[in-house]
Amino acid sequence: MTATLTLHQYAQSANCYKIWLTAAHLGIALDRREYDILKGETRTPEFLANVNSNGRIPVLQVGDRFLPESNAIITYLAHGSRLIPTDRFDHADMLHWMFFEQYHVEPNLGTVRFWRRFVGEGALTEFQRAQIPAKLAAGEAALALMDEHLAGRDWFVGQGMTLADIALYAYTHVGEDGGFAVRSHPNVAAWLARVAAEPGHVGMND
Amino acid sequence: MTATLTLHQYAQSANCYKIWLTAAHLGIALDRREYDILKGETRTPEFLANVNSNGRIPVLQVGDRFLPESNAIITYLAHGSRLIPTDRFDHADMLHWMFFEQYHVEPNLGTVRFWRRFVGEGALTEFQRAQIPAKLAAGEAALALMDEHLAGRDWFVGQGMTLADIALYAYTHVGEDGGFAVRSHPNVAAWLARVAAEPGHVGMND
Repeated sequence: MTATLTLHQYAQSANCYKIWLTAAHLGIALDRREYDILKGETRTPEFLANVNSNGRIPVLQVGDRFLPESNAIITYLAHGSRLIPTDRFDHADMLHWMFFEQYHVEPNLGTVRFWRRFVGEGALTEFQRAQIPAKLAAGEAALALMDEHLAGRDWFVGQGMTLADIALYAYTHVGEDGGFAVRSHPNVAAWLARVAAEPGHVGMND
Repeated sequence: MTATLTLHQYAQSANCYKIWLTAAHLGIALDRREYDILKGETRTPEFLANVNSNGRIPVLQVGDRFLPESNAIITYLAHGSRLIPTDRFDHADMLHWMFFEQYHVEPNLGTVRFWRRFVGEGALTEFQRAQIPAKLAAGEAALALMDEHLAGRDWFVGQGMTLADIALYAYTHVGEDGGFAVRSHPNVAAWLARVAAEPGHVGMND
């Protein structure tokens, strides 16, 4: 990889954490540029024009090209590595869990964590508050499905850690921040410990 | 491809349409098995145990293995084809738009269409009805972003149609069903016509 890699990020976002966790496992150097999303720093005209017209982090800058979406970014970084299965079905199954993560985990575990821990319940709109019960239920259903899948398995796909595990680990391992009883799911709890014990692992605040 | 491919589907789901559109472009034969999601046919104990514990369609059955998530399925089908860029950045950028689609398009254009056209406004819960204004605004924002990206470009990634176009086409081309003014975005309207004019294209009800 010849171009400089710059991650436009907010350090408390688990979508961003996925990326430096992947980079750590693969020994890839990343420059990081921090934005405070609570101060609207990703919604400025400059950010929208130059980094991401969607006003969101993370974005990986590869030379003069910009790549949004956390799970696309980790796929870019892990190209040709052990973190992506070479078997055609397993590769697609890895993507299945990454799409599941963005549809069923991040909007529930991630959003409720953000609202409760970073915005604060008192600062939520009435509409946001009204969504919490449904998001708690949907997140709990996602955890139950993950727990069932992990019964008798060490990893989401195949016989070793893949990007599916890294993507799902990010918001799941801090789900308690949003009030989710993550570790009451025994297979999920064991899998979280397994991911954290992998050589090369780094924590979110390391 | 040696195993029989069976698509477990609901024909009015644009997530399912993506799959037979991809298969049509690639000349891949699919068996289809229909479930009426309005009658709960994907929530039966049999479906949950044997097809998808997430209770959702589409699921592609490849021999005795089951693959959920529409965008994972089309990636499986299009493996090694012209619909997936070989360039490392472009490949990741295609995934970027496919994750964008599942996060910003399907939950807005797709969900409001489903509620209004298939469930019916009168049958919605108060909680569902309360979400419509936010989903209309978020879907409109997604369309505006797509329109801006398509200015001066024919396709979402690179110089030809990829899975990013197929994934985004699915719910966008029927967005009017949910009340979205899709074709008031001129670049989106031109791109929709371009996708439909590709050799091998099939419509949702063909």
